[in-house]
Amino acid sequence: MSHCYGCGRLNDVGMKIKSFWVDEENAAIAKFIPQPFHTAFPGYVYGGLIASLIDCHGTGTAAAAAYRAEGREMDSEPPLRFVTASLHVNYLKPTPIDTTLVLRGEIKEMKDRKVTVEVSLSANGEICASGEVITVKIPPTMLKR
Amino acid sequence: MSHCYGCGRLNDVGMKIKSFWVDEENAAIAKFIPQPFHTAFPGYVYGGLIASLIDCHGTGTAAAAAYRAEGREMDSEPPLRFVTASLHVNYLKPTPIDTTLVLRGEIKEMKDRKVTVEVSLSANGEICASGEVITVKIPPTMLKR
Repeated sequence: MSHCYGCGRLNDVGMKIKSFWVDEENAAIAKFIPQPFHTAFPGYVYGGLIASLIDCHGTGTAAAAAYRAEGREMDSEPPLRFVTASLHVNYLKPTPIDTTLVLRGEIKEMKDRKVTVEVSLSANGEICASGEVITVKIPPTMLKR
Repeated sequence: MSHCYGCGRLNDVGMKIKSFWVDEENAAIAKFIPQPFHTAFPGYVYGGLIASLIDCHGTGTAAAAAYRAEGREMDSEPPLRFVTASLHVNYLKPTPIDTTLVLRGEIKEMKDRKVTVEVSLSANGEICASGEVITVKIPPTMLKR
């Protein structure tokens, strides 16, 4: 996953999204500062970026919850990674581009290999978009490849 | 819209997606060649790109259909433009990165200001993702701003 455009540390032009589990909130949080080129209309963030952030933070939240459910440290071996089976985004209001976006992911359901995550995206304390990400654990064999 | 990261001709680092209405297919078609950095795992396209393509092609398909419904040439004045109210993407199989992606948008419903579009994304003749984009016509006052 280190080459992922969304979160990979080795993707030079990628977004390098970092999601952190926050115990007190029982949620995963990520922050992202849009670049000027991430625009739709001048002043507002492009919808594809919003979908990308919700998607990536959704799979990150699922992974964090899976480590916790097994009582394991994040990134301990073997890795737990999730891919998106379906993504749903509601665009509630235009998202300003000149501020930090805050993503908050909460677990809606964990069931076998499937983890469903609810994600909100806020700017200046207002929720601008919300989403649901249905994720599926990647089989270890696929990770090895 | 000319600055849009998805489809704007003036966004130097944007994706410059172009959607075309094809009468014989009663659908809008767009083609996109992923760049190597658009990756999730090596060899496969990042899910956020897929969501972005489906979103942008959905709003483009809605606009094309709206011009047709009014019997107007595309891009005749006043402009008809749509934003996304909600986006749903199903990731059906991993999408290879080393080939041209083909998007196909069909109108599911047109109702007042709301146009619902179904979009498929194919690679090498196989549908890898499908989506539904609910779009809303932008008020002319907002376009003028």
